[in-house]
Amino acid sequence: MRTLKLFTVLLFSVLALNVSAQQKKYVMVIHGGAGTILKKNMTPEKEAAYIAVLTQALQAGYEKIKSGKTSLDAVEATIHVMENDPHFNAGKGAVFTHDGKNELDAAIMDGKTLMAGAVAGVTTVKNPISAARAVMEKSEHVMMVGAGADLFAKDAGLEIVDPKYYWTKERWDGLQQAIKEDSTKAVLDHGSKKSELLGSKNHDYKFGTVGCVALDKAGNLAAGTSTGGMTNKKYGRVGDAPIIGSGTYCNNETAGVSCTGWGEFYIRNVVAKTISDLMEYKGLSVAVASKMALDKVGKMGGDGGLIALDKKGNIAMPFNTEGMYRGAITADGKIEVNIYK
Amino acid sequence: MRTLKLFTVLLFSVLALNVSAQQKKYVMVIHGGAGTILKKNMTPEKEAAYIAVLTQALQAGYEKIKSGKTSLDAVEATIHVMENDPHFNAGKGAVFTHDGKNELDAAIMDGKTLMAGAVAGVTTVKNPISAARAVMEKSEHVMMVGAGADLFAKDAGLEIVDPKYYWTKERWDGLQQAIKEDSTKAVLDHGSKKSELLGSKNHDYKFGTVGCVALDKAGNLAAGTSTGGMTNKKYGRVGDAPIIGSGTYCNNETAGVSCTGWGEFYIRNVVAKTISDLMEYKGLSVAVASKMALDKVGKMGGDGGLIALDKKGNIAMPFNTEGMYRGAITADGKIEVNIYK
Repeated sequence: MRTLKLFTVLLFSVLALNVSAQQKKYVMVIHGGAGTILKKNMTPEKEAAYIAVLTQALQAGYEKIKSGKTSLDAVEATIHVMENDPHFNAGKGAVFTHDGKNELDAAIMDGKTLMAGAVAGVTTVKNPISAARAVMEKSEHVMMVGAGADLFAKDAGLEIVDPKYYWTKERWDGLQQAIKEDSTKAVLDHGSKKSELLGSKNHDYKFGTVGCVALDKAGNLAAGTSTGGMTNKKYGRVGDAPIIGSGTYCNNETAGVSCTGWGEFYIRNVVAKTISDLMEYKGLSVAVASKMALDKVGKMGGDGGLIALDKKGNIAMPFNTEGMYRGAITADGKIEVNIYK
Repeated sequence: MRTLKLFTVLLFSVLALNVSAQQKKYVMVIHGGAGTILKKNMTPEKEAAYIAVLTQALQAGYEKIKSGKTSLDAVEATIHVMENDPHFNAGKGAVFTHDGKNELDAAIMDGKTLMAGAVAGVTTVKNPISAARAVMEKSEHVMMVGAGADLFAKDAGLEIVDPKYYWTKERWDGLQQAIKEDSTKAVLDHGSKKSELLGSKNHDYKFGTVGCVALDKAGNLAAGTSTGGMTNKKYGRVGDAPIIGSGTYCNNETAGVSCTGWGEFYIRNVVAKTISDLMEYKGLSVAVASKMALDKVGKMGGDGGLIALDKKGNIAMPFNTEGMYRGAITADGKIEVNIYK
């Protein structure tokens, strides 16, 4: 009987070891926004385009890591690909504000030093993630907003574009549709002062953000997020993406996190830092901590998703929407890209 | 021997109970900024003025709580007093940006619902804390920045002032001094690209913020923070005050927190949420959690202070600077106000 017990223990130990050995080590994880992304609404061409650019984004960052560059370099290079592609609500593909403008937000954080940089409401920076990095590395500040942030980016030598650069037909049409739906809504909610002050009520207008977390050869994590915000947004609304602790956070001791979704709920729950604290103070895994933090958002009525990567190369990509553009790459260069549930 | 042991245990239990019974229950705690505040630099008149306005601020909030109003009402009323007084770097007494403007930030959070509101870079709102509350209660957003936030405040019916309202001789002279010191600094650091992009290097220009946490009769906590930011700030810099999770956070399950100090370090450490998480996930008291979070700021090279109040009426007011304008009031109306260490 005793021999049988010992045998069972040994067998389970071997199995456990085997699982652990098989566990993949990831070096990058990305998202391109979460929302009502359903296969039935997607053309094969559009789906192929998303998969292509997610793959290209992962490759761009992976090249940096493979060649010994920092995780910050990888995050920046990866997000550049997504910012320069019109499919995502960031950079070139940014959605329009109520006034027909594009106001972009981004943040980046270095897990080794806990240095961070963020910009909100920039209108002339081609790559907001680089503006965030410049704030982190070339100023003693963490956050800059509005015209001041644009000026800083220019002074820091970043590529400045005419605001027309961000114009795309799809996003412009999206704004017209949102305005139309909003005016119907305003008539319906005529009595409510609140409704007059609100942005669009259409749920999916809130979504679309890109993000990346990377782990370099030196074992340092970095995380970044970039967004065009919310279609038809008014009053200089800022979501969670540029808020350190909410949409973006990174700490070598725990994990790097980038969120996407209904930003207001992510701010109220300080989601990214919550994941880090659940790992640090409760000893939870990145997967369990990420799920718990997203569940808090869900219970409150918010939705979206997030990506997280810990220092050991474990990832989490939970979302409570229909889909999330997402992908990851392992240390040996194996790419995984997914869109739907 | 056994009887002696039992007697000792009983004695300590009685003593512990006694201490617990004597422990005061606070219903409000406030701060008016931390920094190099030394008695030797203070005139008796100035000291008396600070003590008077801190007392008046506590009384204004206490009146709300005593009459059964919410903790949000108390926080707003208290911060109004400090915003309307030129002694504090918030509202009327806001410091000047490099361009000779006043850009104000504020945030408020409701511990019961985890609803939150924040504004950054407003230039025409008499009481930014009320603009933050309007964002929380009259929009579906959490954060608004720049001209959009000013417009929202106006649309929400708040008192709008000409930017000249914020002009005070002391702050204007402070800006001139900071510019003078900066240009000396720029000559010294001529070779460094970084220094050209920085704001003022003078340490104390970073400080000055007002904040309040209140606990109402229904047992609900609320926290708020309001600031004029940093003297001579450039590029639309935003500090921790309006960042939910960093300078301001509130949760009935843990505590309400408002921070003041070198904002960048408070953002990088997500200080306010860290305190809440240390309480929630590690079971620490508000005092121990507050000290631990401030120690993280200190170890990184940052300084300042914070106030916190938990649902049981326990407060913490740690700071690692020479002084912090601060005060608290107990459930039975006893006021304590302090300035120095």
